[in-house]
Amino acid sequence: MPKVVLAFSGGLDTSFCVKYLAEDQGYDVYSVLVDTGGFSDEELKTIEANAYALGVKQHTTVDRTKEYYSDCIRYLVFGNILKNNTYPLSVSAERIFQAVAVAEYAREIGASAIAHGSTGAGNDQVRFDMAFRIIMPEAEIITPIRDLKLSREAEIEYLTKKGVQRDWKKAEYSINKGLWGTSVGGKETLTSNQYLPESAWPTQVTKTEPETITLEFEKGELVGLNGQRAETSVQAIQQLAEMAQPFGIGRDIHVGDTIIGIKGRVGFEAAAPLIIIKAHHTLEKHVLTEQQLYWKEQLANWYGSLLHKGQFVEPVMRNIETFMTDTQNHVTGKVQVHLAPYRFHVEGIESNFDLMSPVFGSYGEMNNAWTGDDVRGFSKVASNQSMIYQKISELSQKK
Amino acid sequence: MPKVVLAFSGGLDTSFCVKYLAEDQGYDVYSVLVDTGGFSDEELKTIEANAYALGVKQHTTVDRTKEYYSDCIRYLVFGNILKNNTYPLSVSAERIFQAVAVAEYAREIGASAIAHGSTGAGNDQVRFDMAFRIIMPEAEIITPIRDLKLSREAEIEYLTKKGVQRDWKKAEYSINKGLWGTSVGGKETLTSNQYLPESAWPTQVTKTEPETITLEFEKGELVGLNGQRAETSVQAIQQLAEMAQPFGIGRDIHVGDTIIGIKGRVGFEAAAPLIIIKAHHTLEKHVLTEQQLYWKEQLANWYGSLLHKGQFVEPVMRNIETFMTDTQNHVTGKVQVHLAPYRFHVEGIESNFDLMSPVFGSYGEMNNAWTGDDVRGFSKVASNQSMIYQKISELSQKK
Amino acid sequence: MPKVVLAFSGGLDTSFCVKYLAEDQGYDVYSVLVDTGGFSDEELKTIEANAYALGVKQHTTVDRTKEYYSDCIRYLVFGNILKNNTYPLSVSAERIFQAVAVAEYAREIGASAIAHGSTGAGNDQVRFDMAFRIIMPEAEIITPIRDLKLSREAEIEYLTKKGVQRDWKKAEYSINKGLWGTSVGGKETLTSNQYLPESAWPTQVTKTEPETITLEFEKGELVGLNGQRAETSVQAIQQLAEMAQPFGIGRDIHVGDTIIGIKGRVGFEAAAPLIIIKAHHTLEKHVLTEQQLYWKEQLANWYGSLLHKGQFVEPVMRNIETFMTDTQNHVTGKVQVHLAPYRFHVEGIESNFDLMSPVFGSYGEMNNAWTGDDVRGFSKVASNQSMIYQKISELSQKK
Amino acid sequence: MPKVVLAFSGGLDTSFCVKYLAEDQGYDVYSVLVDTGGFSDEELKTIEANAYALGVKQHTTVDRTKEYYSDCIRYLVFGNILKNNTYPLSVSAERIFQAVAVAEYAREIGASAIAHGSTGAGNDQVRFDMAFRIIMPEAEIITPIRDLKLSREAEIEYLTKKGVQRDWKKAEYSINKGLWGTSVGGKETLTSNQYLPESAWPTQVTKTEPETITLEFEKGELVGLNGQRAETSVQAIQQLAEMAQPFGIGRDIHVGDTIIGIKGRVGFEAAAPLIIIKAHHTLEKHVLTEQQLYWKEQLANWYGSLLHKGQFVEPVMRNIETFMTDTQNHVTGKVQVHLAPYRFHVEGIESNFDLMSPVFGSYGEMNNAWTGDDVRGFSKVASNQSMIYQKISELSQKK
Repeated sequence: MPKVVLAFSGGLDTSFCVKYLAEDQGYDVYSVLVDTGGFSDEELKTIEANAYALGVKQHTTVDRTKEYYSDCIRYLVFGNILKNNTYPLSVSAERIFQAVAVAEYAREIGASAIAHGSTGAGNDQVRFDMAFRIIMPEAEIITPIRDLKLSREAEIEYLTKKGVQRDWKKAEYSINKGLWGTSVGGKETLTSNQYLPESAWPTQVTKTEPETITLEFEKGELVGLNGQRAETSVQAIQQLAEMAQPFGIGRDIHVGDTIIGIKGRVGFEAAAPLIIIKAHHTLEKHVLTEQQLYWKEQLANWYGSLLHKGQFVEPVMRNIETFMTDTQNHVTGKVQVHLAPYRFHVEGIESNFDLMSPVFGSYGEMNNAWTGDDVRGFSKVASNQSMIYQKISELSQKK
Repeated sequence: MPKVVLAFSGGLDTSFCVKYLAEDQGYDVYSVLVDTGGFSDEELKTIEANAYALGVKQHTTVDRTKEYYSDCIRYLVFGNILKNNTYPLSVSAERIFQAVAVAEYAREIGASAIAHGSTGAGNDQVRFDMAFRIIMPEAEIITPIRDLKLSREAEIEYLTKKGVQRDWKKAEYSINKGLWGTSVGGKETLTSNQYLPESAWPTQVTKTEPETITLEFEKGELVGLNGQRAETSVQAIQQLAEMAQPFGIGRDIHVGDTIIGIKGRVGFEAAAPLIIIKAHHTLEKHVLTEQQLYWKEQLANWYGSLLHKGQFVEPVMRNIETFMTDTQNHVTGKVQVHLAPYRFHVEGIESNFDLMSPVFGSYGEMNNAWTGDDVRGFSKVASNQSMIYQKISELSQKK
Repeated sequence: MPKVVLAFSGGLDTSFCVKYLAEDQGYDVYSVLVDTGGFSDEELKTIEANAYALGVKQHTTVDRTKEYYSDCIRYLVFGNILKNNTYPLSVSAERIFQAVAVAEYAREIGASAIAHGSTGAGNDQVRFDMAFRIIMPEAEIITPIRDLKLSREAEIEYLTKKGVQRDWKKAEYSINKGLWGTSVGGKETLTSNQYLPESAWPTQVTKTEPETITLEFEKGELVGLNGQRAETSVQAIQQLAEMAQPFGIGRDIHVGDTIIGIKGRVGFEAAAPLIIIKAHHTLEKHVLTEQQLYWKEQLANWYGSLLHKGQFVEPVMRNIETFMTDTQNHVTGKVQVHLAPYRFHVEGIESNFDLMSPVFGSYGEMNNAWTGDDVRGFSKVASNQSMIYQKISELSQKK
Repeated sequence: MPKVVLAFSGGLDTSFCVKYLAEDQGYDVYSVLVDTGGFSDEELKTIEANAYALGVKQHTTVDRTKEYYSDCIRYLVFGNILKNNTYPLSVSAERIFQAVAVAEYAREIGASAIAHGSTGAGNDQVRFDMAFRIIMPEAEIITPIRDLKLSREAEIEYLTKKGVQRDWKKAEYSINKGLWGTSVGGKETLTSNQYLPESAWPTQVTKTEPETITLEFEKGELVGLNGQRAETSVQAIQQLAEMAQPFGIGRDIHVGDTIIGIKGRVGFEAAAPLIIIKAHHTLEKHVLTEQQLYWKEQLANWYGSLLHKGQFVEPVMRNIETFMTDTQNHVTGKVQVHLAPYRFHVEGIESNFDLMSPVFGSYGEMNNAWTGDDVRGFSKVASNQSMIYQKISELSQKK
């Protein structure tokens, strides 16, 4: 029988897909779950058991947490990437990364088809489609949910008929938890004018006493917290999330352009990503030049945009990553951050590479490295062109 | 006697300049204060009286508040301009605008020289120098404080000798209050690692009960609050500041590149600018296309950067303003904002131009205007180039 | 019977479409040809006669030459737009402009379907598809050639069976002549390494004696040649083409990215567009500031890219046009151009707005408007940041 | 006696500087000439002899041709850099590179001052000033010609008095010959409307018979010509110049913005740079993706602009170089170029990495890797946002 690899999450849609592909379409179903840090061991076991119960030929859990950090999240930090100045791309990054891993797995085992369970109304379908097509163009792409346009009820009925009995009740809010933040969708996010109620947020606010913490960066990567070096940056991110998320920090609603051209709105809580990015960015403002900051921002926004659109495999992404890495040589130091319920601010930084050195002059106070006449000359030369433009404009009116 | 126009604020530095220019340099001093909304009538009268007491030939108050809004602030709103994603350019915008007005006044009265009281270590000197040079290149630019490098003590001694008796004691924090925010400098902002203490902020936190307010925009401009139309947008900004600043909203420290190449750090409180920009930007995310949002951001960041650097008179600024205005035709609607101590968030928007219309499909839920096959085709064509690149790479390795 | 509007060129593909739509699909066919300056009156009459002979219900020639210039070509000149620094977008501009006009016509007459004769392997199909969808989303889009994948032979056989007798022999080179240049495709352009032979170029070289001509621009538009004011800019373009094309000027091969992700290669001859753009650009280099030139280029390249991709109706295009127009106020003057076989160069310009005025100093010769010390100060301040960076780097290595 | 390092070219200005610094200012003068490929051995010997004759303490020739190529020219090729789409930065690149080398030499020998012979009206003064300041901020910068504002006559008189007898007659055209092109200034380039006469060009046209040559690139670098591998890329450039310059190829006049804000005009002949860049760019259009081409162009233009402005030492330049290098992995192949008097064109390319592979479909001819329906879907999804915008606009007008 032909092999199909199915990106499997264990939810209703992908459970339907297993049965449908195995029994109606005659495939050997190879379910695969790409773990990017969002699942506990127990959850992974349950999902595996469910897969086999549904009749997969084989279920595989691919652990890509380390790569997800080193090949993706790391660059989101280097680039201070917030889509539309708001959203840390929590889901976008994870999904495209998983899609690529699924395609690589399918290629490895020589599948003739790859399947995903996305609907026809979101971004994820495009990310899966594109990753599959680029990595393994010879494979057929099967998308039962999108093609059959089944309602949840119809899917449940189908599964029940097939003897699958589970409690498929839909949660009021759809939650997507990952290393780089948690997204929240619900009836409010389908409108333009409503905000999520307090109860909708996955992490409830349990900390009320402000804290001041220290983030330690080395060449742009978070390597420790409060003087304690973490084993890995992934661990440091997770520790920070534990410290900060109970404050309710990093909640917001992102309104953005989907890949399919409509506007979409999604709630998210992402304390660790937002704190890391703001802290990292502040450190960079001290150690990088104006030109470096400018071009980092240009390339980073584009990187985020292509990532969002499922273009993670596009070669320019590798070129941009090389650029980003090269800019991080001096981004080493400590950043002090104040945490309080629902908010935080960066207090200050310390770095051997800090360009704000009083040796050369202090803004508004001292000028050791130049004189007033130097600035006078600077201003004069810097205004030459506008001055000439002004004069020529006046002269031309007299002609 | 030759005429010198002096940009006069009434502080120690510019008071010194009056005496120095009038008595030591033999000028008729025409002091001018450009009001951009930061002074009360009483303050203006005191400053005028002080000017005459110091011996100016004539003192003039030029009211440019209206123009400051319509020719400058308006575009900072259209562009959602936050320097380094943080600072609404509170001082930069005001100073260059005042500098231009001073130069125009000097030109009008036919002065032979223009003077400002800036030191040699900040941004303002360049803004004044450039505006004066461009508008009135034939005038000499005199900068006594920068040139003589006098200490405060020496200035006070000089004035005392000349018979000027005032209490010149320096405030612990130097505060610059304007329509578009208030800056705060002090010993902490001269370091990289210290934050301003609670007491340093000009507006102390007196509101603790959260409020939800509505901002009304018309073609990108704030025209009303909570259902009440303001007489002018200036008034609306001032009303919003009164509502929001007592929450301690909009406080932060900006670290940036000064025009003279060193890093500078400045605290600011700017509740109204930050709320307006975030609300306006959210509204834009609903009513503008992805392409419009992208190019607005590119041009706006540059606009902010040139403004910061004193290049307000550069012709490209007018071209960018034309672009910005043209993008605002649909930026009409209401934005609901939640205010709480030290923070705020946008709850949602309402607009006739909202592109997030469920008629065409809801993100993640429905797709009325296209089919699954359409997206499949889209994904395929959109991945063509990366797919071909991948294949060619593999083939070339075999050669 | 339902109405279908067919974009009709009179060639084999669209002739097939008429018969197919009218006889096999049961439509009343309304053929429409949008004239953008590429047809003689006689050609238009022949096409009309052929349409009726094929059995259209009604044939309409929509003259949009004037609008094509004022709403499109004009901005290509303002923006000095050469795709990949090479190609003046001769076909791209024309096709999308025609597609929009066809859709507007279909909407006007209340058609239920719109048809085009493009194949599935080029850019034009996307341009038609998109224009039709945006302007008239309720209409069905019918594309017989793309869908049936017929060979030329099959089409001819079909038409012959239907009683249509014409000489359909394929020319060795497919030529597309328009106001803004002529494209040439042939067996060489399907390779990467072959150039078009001399005989393939539509305009053979008949002029050998060099000429020097003068182009006159007003606010960025070509208004006259050699001291003679043209009635319209369209006429001036046509006159210039007559003067310059017989020199064989403006021939090249463009290699570019198609909308569908593959690389495409196309020959073109476009003497008038290339001369106008180079002349206009040179004039701009004299009258615009460095900042204006920079941002014009950014926006113009994007404009060209969106136009190429069929995104002419995207709202940001209107915003960019507003920007472009606003930059042209000073782009008035004369440009002298030397024409010779296969090449041309700009000799120089004259303009009242020329910023290269010796009053303020001549490059490398005089400096009236600043002193050596001014430049010394400028250099010092402009090098502050790199100097500090260098010092901090050295110091950090010692730590 | 204090040591001064003087950037010495052997011309009138720097000869004056030697005498002035040694005899009037009491310095031990260390003259240094940085060779970047523009001098013959004989010329270097003459210059050295002249230096000692003028009384320098020591003269040093620093050979940096290899580094000039590998650290600078290489990136101008990778980036296809033509300032204002015209000028290969022949002088800008060389001068800043030499200035840095002079400063490094001064630092090495522990000089207390560095001198250059530039006037106050050009770009070079800023390049020297900046490089000296950044590399060796503690050294005094001495600029006798700029400061004393001497005429040529006065300089000659001074040298004659000091016993220096040479024929200092000024050439009609000032020529600057380097590895990356030759600049030509004269009375015509001081106007806006005159072109250089035939006789002014350093290389007269001696070849009239067209030739077709092949350039071979490896990872973006020119490594051979006509099937012959060169020893170094520097050699390949020189060989190409010998082949092509006698055709009079690569002549033009560049009009640009000087660092000091005025417009400047300079003639140049640069056959090799222009051919290499056009050939390299064409190869890239075949082997890189649209995204890579876009971002390369953005960064390259900026790189060229900073280089022109003397900002070669700015850290972002290194980051951009890293990006550029990373994009060149596939830029390997052959490019055929047709040379004829005064002009050339690229005929085609061959590369293992050519993305224009007929396997996947040929532009306008075949579509193997997608169907018509795929493109239909693509067009539909790609037009979603403009379609919705259009509809919402119409609806809003009815409200």
